[in-house]
Amino acid sequence: MIKVGIVGGTGYTGVELLRLLAVHPDVQLTAITSRKEDGLPVADMFPSLRGRVNLAFSSPDKADLSKCDVVFFATPHGVAMAQAPALLAAGVKVIDLAADFRIKDKAVFEKWYKIEHTCPGLLDEAAYGLAELNRDAIKGARLVANPGCYPTTMQLGYYPLLKAGLIDAGSLIADCKSGVSGAGRKAEIATLFSESSDNFKAYGVAGHRHTPETSAQLQKFTADKVGLVFTPHLVPMIRGMHSTLYGRLTKDVSNEELQALFEAQYLDSPFVDVMPFGSHPETRSTRGSNMLRLALHRPDNGNTVIVLVVQDNLVKGASGQAVQCMNLMFGLEETTGLTQIALLP
Amino acid sequence: MIKVGIVGGTGYTGVELLRLLAVHPDVQLTAITSRKEDGLPVADMFPSLRGRVNLAFSSPDKADLSKCDVVFFATPHGVAMAQAPALLAAGVKVIDLAADFRIKDKAVFEKWYKIEHTCPGLLDEAAYGLAELNRDAIKGARLVANPGCYPTTMQLGYYPLLKAGLIDAGSLIADCKSGVSGAGRKAEIATLFSESSDNFKAYGVAGHRHTPETSAQLQKFTADKVGLVFTPHLVPMIRGMHSTLYGRLTKDVSNEELQALFEAQYLDSPFVDVMPFGSHPETRSTRGSNMLRLALHRPDNGNTVIVLVVQDNLVKGASGQAVQCMNLMFGLEETTGLTQIALLP
Amino acid sequence: MIKVGIVGGTGYTGVELLRLLAVHPDVQLTAITSRKEDGLPVADMFPSLRGRVNLAFSSPDKADLSKCDVVFFATPHGVAMAQAPALLAAGVKVIDLAADFRIKDKAVFEKWYKIEHTCPGLLDEAAYGLAELNRDAIKGARLVANPGCYPTTMQLGYYPLLKAGLIDAGSLIADCKSGVSGAGRKAEIATLFSESSDNFKAYGVAGHRHTPETSAQLQKFTADKVGLVFTPHLVPMIRGMHSTLYGRLTKDVSNEELQALFEAQYLDSPFVDVMPFGSHPETRSTRGSNMLRLALHRPDNGNTVIVLVVQDNLVKGASGQAVQCMNLMFGLEETTGLTQIALLP
Amino acid sequence: MIKVGIVGGTGYTGVELLRLLAVHPDVQLTAITSRKEDGLPVADMFPSLRGRVNLAFSSPDKADLSKCDVVFFATPHGVAMAQAPALLAAGVKVIDLAADFRIKDKAVFEKWYKIEHTCPGLLDEAAYGLAELNRDAIKGARLVANPGCYPTTMQLGYYPLLKAGLIDAGSLIADCKSGVSGAGRKAEIATLFSESSDNFKAYGVAGHRHTPETSAQLQKFTADKVGLVFTPHLVPMIRGMHSTLYGRLTKDVSNEELQALFEAQYLDSPFVDVMPFGSHPETRSTRGSNMLRLALHRPDNGNTVIVLVVQDNLVKGASGQAVQCMNLMFGLEETTGLTQIALLP
Repeated sequence: MIKVGIVGGTGYTGVELLRLLAVHPDVQLTAITSRKEDGLPVADMFPSLRGRVNLAFSSPDKADLSKCDVVFFATPHGVAMAQAPALLAAGVKVIDLAADFRIKDKAVFEKWYKIEHTCPGLLDEAAYGLAELNRDAIKGARLVANPGCYPTTMQLGYYPLLKAGLIDAGSLIADCKSGVSGAGRKAEIATLFSESSDNFKAYGVAGHRHTPETSAQLQKFTADKVGLVFTPHLVPMIRGMHSTLYGRLTKDVSNEELQALFEAQYLDSPFVDVMPFGSHPETRSTRGSNMLRLALHRPDNGNTVIVLVVQDNLVKGASGQAVQCMNLMFGLEETTGLTQIALLP
Repeated sequence: MIKVGIVGGTGYTGVELLRLLAVHPDVQLTAITSRKEDGLPVADMFPSLRGRVNLAFSSPDKADLSKCDVVFFATPHGVAMAQAPALLAAGVKVIDLAADFRIKDKAVFEKWYKIEHTCPGLLDEAAYGLAELNRDAIKGARLVANPGCYPTTMQLGYYPLLKAGLIDAGSLIADCKSGVSGAGRKAEIATLFSESSDNFKAYGVAGHRHTPETSAQLQKFTADKVGLVFTPHLVPMIRGMHSTLYGRLTKDVSNEELQALFEAQYLDSPFVDVMPFGSHPETRSTRGSNMLRLALHRPDNGNTVIVLVVQDNLVKGASGQAVQCMNLMFGLEETTGLTQIALLP
Repeated sequence: MIKVGIVGGTGYTGVELLRLLAVHPDVQLTAITSRKEDGLPVADMFPSLRGRVNLAFSSPDKADLSKCDVVFFATPHGVAMAQAPALLAAGVKVIDLAADFRIKDKAVFEKWYKIEHTCPGLLDEAAYGLAELNRDAIKGARLVANPGCYPTTMQLGYYPLLKAGLIDAGSLIADCKSGVSGAGRKAEIATLFSESSDNFKAYGVAGHRHTPETSAQLQKFTADKVGLVFTPHLVPMIRGMHSTLYGRLTKDVSNEELQALFEAQYLDSPFVDVMPFGSHPETRSTRGSNMLRLALHRPDNGNTVIVLVVQDNLVKGASGQAVQCMNLMFGLEETTGLTQIALLP
Repeated sequence: MIKVGIVGGTGYTGVELLRLLAVHPDVQLTAITSRKEDGLPVADMFPSLRGRVNLAFSSPDKADLSKCDVVFFATPHGVAMAQAPALLAAGVKVIDLAADFRIKDKAVFEKWYKIEHTCPGLLDEAAYGLAELNRDAIKGARLVANPGCYPTTMQLGYYPLLKAGLIDAGSLIADCKSGVSGAGRKAEIATLFSESSDNFKAYGVAGHRHTPETSAQLQKFTADKVGLVFTPHLVPMIRGMHSTLYGRLTKDVSNEELQALFEAQYLDSPFVDVMPFGSHPETRSTRGSNMLRLALHRPDNGNTVIVLVVQDNLVKGASGQAVQCMNLMFGLEETTGLTQIALLP
């Protein structure tokens, strides 16, 4: 059994890790830390876990995380970089669900996240946890940077097109929509029910932290200079993310070839579902599951290709993807403990 | 034109007052105070008011409320009692949307609201602002205590039955459901979209502040001892309140007589709609309007009568009712500025 | 492996059976019938099942259900009674999720469901599928009538009180609220998003089919005459049911004794969670799981006891409960395949 | 008083016309037709209108529409073209909320709407009812084709840019999102609450009827060939539309110049609100009102300009816009009866 610790178990990615790991056949939940909630039974905060998770939150100093085999950080940005070095030195593997190790360029990180990076020495070592495009590195990693939710959809949607050199890398437009849980479990007026229900808006159009992460990753797929316009929007639903990705085709290619390209790319990726050409994937078809579904469109058979991508932002976009990485890091089947079927309706 | 001031314009009852008063033909909005938002144009916080309300929030010390004809308090409990005496002394009428003057018994108020009542001398003078049952007192009042949202539905629903002595006053059961806006515009986790959407729960079953207010008012309608069980629930909708009121019939009465009793009672009340016997009023039929609708049921023609009552908790349950009181206090038609039709769908 | 057939797989209880049975370790899905959708892959209608359920719908005449070990009927009322006799004769067990065998009294059934009962000979044999109160009968049954969703909550909530003779059986008031999926997957205006979102209403107050089912079952628990007022309401959420059950205490009993009574009653029932006295269970704490949670209240320590009961209407209220029965009928652990943790948020 | 008839009053644009016209100071509602609901009081179908609209639906043959001054068609496509000629001949003005007269090219209409155009002789005469861009023609018109909801947002957002020749007309990308009421009041499974709540999806990506309408109108603003990719999505909210419009700048222009261009363009348009550069308009800021709000963005000060446009799809996107046209046609102030403030929250 893999002994698992979770730092920061009171947010949505934390409780989602608990939901998944509590039924994972190879995992023994060992410690869940929260400075604020020390002593509180986890199930008192999340009644969905009553009878299923019997641990209490413990303050970080009491929890001996060094006895874990792996520690997940479901924390605000900046926490993992402070604690990872000691854990790694103690032989504990680390998976960070925040952004501390996602961006290799220290200066870019510090510009967007407004905090100093105190652990730059680990940036190169950290594996980027997008299993579908980086499986081997993850298998051998001690430290994994779990991708952002939006970047997961943009990378898996654009990758086959960029790698094959079929679209203009300089004019990518990603119009993305997220459920409200993406904003986290924080007391804020903007995400109150009465503010965000029955409403739709864009946000962060002038600049979102997922832009530099995505651009840097996309740049790996092509020699051309990547130019990405990324527009996030807030949808009145709890879970779910839908990315509408536009690319300008630069080569003569048939729709069948486009479809075949994607099917071949994701043939061995159990969590990417390439739907038939012209489908309209719905976010609810992934609710609570680790599946990401995508479909291709080409309006009027013109030179614009559209990739529609959906996922559950808390599962494939966060905690499920982290467990997927853990499976790879410990030599398990990639799908272990992740076979939940989406809740529909 | 009536010069109107609003103290505490940043909450939901405040913005709702602004929506209603900005189009009221006899009102001139004069001052809106907010300690925290001094100088901020109101329309910057509430873009729905762009081009319609050109005032900025001003801190309480800058706003000369004594030049107003009437001041509405859309504030937390305790604010109105501190400022009302000086305003009244200056000849300004006061309408309090909070609870400061709803409960006549100082000790009961202090037990439930956990603050000292600093202005008990005005408790007797304050008119209880339920126009349908207290019209004359409101017309002559300098100070009005606007009723709570739940109490409005319970009183209008139970009044004809209690007054006619048809039900057992000692075994009233009010199972009530409110939209989330009833919790106000406060940064709290429990009312986040991700917490309260796609969910239903009871709350405050052990004791809710609207119980003593309602019990005291209901007691006025009957010589028998009132016993009320009031169970509030939270509904994943922004606006709307639905009260399901149960009463045990103690006299032989036909359904036609019951219906006639309610129709006669509310014949001259333009904001109470007695629907046909056996109807199922929907909250959305009142969304954004000052109407309260109710309908009677009697399962199996047995000895239980059910009154279903719906209203928009922010309009008839709060700000619309307050404007209705203002109209009466200033000799206007009760319906002036309150003829908006509900938004459906 | 248990060979399972499903008649009527296109509704919500059908797709929910598929979600649960596709990951059940002892089940082999064998046939799913739909007259209208013959030949359509199930996953084309429900994309959440892509890659997980590879069957196509087949018309009833093509599917050889007699080769199954058990057949679930997720059909409109009246279908199971027509097909059950032949299946039972062929040695196939039958679980009906509709009402055909819930009401033992043929006349009562026909009055409420407006169809003739063509198979009255099986009414006595059919076991009522509420495992917590009828476990032994289900274990030995060939034919199970799965309870209605509302009746499940009312029975489990009232049973300990009635059995112990603590409340007045003649004045039960059940104020119940259901998510919209309870209305099924039918093209109807009343359950359109634009009609039922941001809205709350009662329905069927004059008489709901779950009243006679519940009254008949409750009557088994007490010698006194049961009198039940049942008021269903529609909540703008997909899944979830919340019943607020009122009972008038007729004996002197402490809150601790009440709590102990419920805890003892459901000690060995893995799917009933008795929460601490005074808790407010939320429907989302059961979303997608087979758990039913309940909590006791006693306002002002008076003579009214309130039982708050929540469940997912499609799982414990329908398909999960049916699988729970199947487990018992085939000698499996009651919890097999039903350990999904609720999706929260 | 303008005598108004409405053909097809049972859909969402019909009830919205009733909500607006019932309080319009210059209108007398005269007839509302519905073949199916002949004799039913309008308020029985829409309880929000109880006490406010006392008409009953009448079958088309009974209603003498020729006595009206103006008739609105809130009907499926094809109805207005059949009845308009006779009404016009009788001196009645006609405003069609459907598509019958929106597209001037008969062949294009017939290709997209799959019905024969039986009244091509009126296509040239019909004024396109987008007041902000076509005010004079509407003032003098007998017959107005009210624009589609999506086309309204795309035209008002792209117009200043295309007219000034600032963007590449050939590579327009409009990523649009609509509330569910846009699908109408029709019994269909896809728009059930349980199907479309807590979900997000694109639809009609391969080709939507609003594309040819929009392209034809946009083409009037520029000499270059218009190329438009239009991607509609469905948002789980009742009302509201958000269009995210992308344009590639072809000239050197500052953000201040862009902003000034829009402000000058809509200076005299009371229903278009140009928000400060970089704002994020929310659909709810227009809920129930006839306002359209827009804001400009320019990510990284690069060569992509984004116009964010919001409106209430049933008001400015349909019925409110139709009343705006009526006002112009009858010489009234454009804003008469349309000053409702948006409902927020």
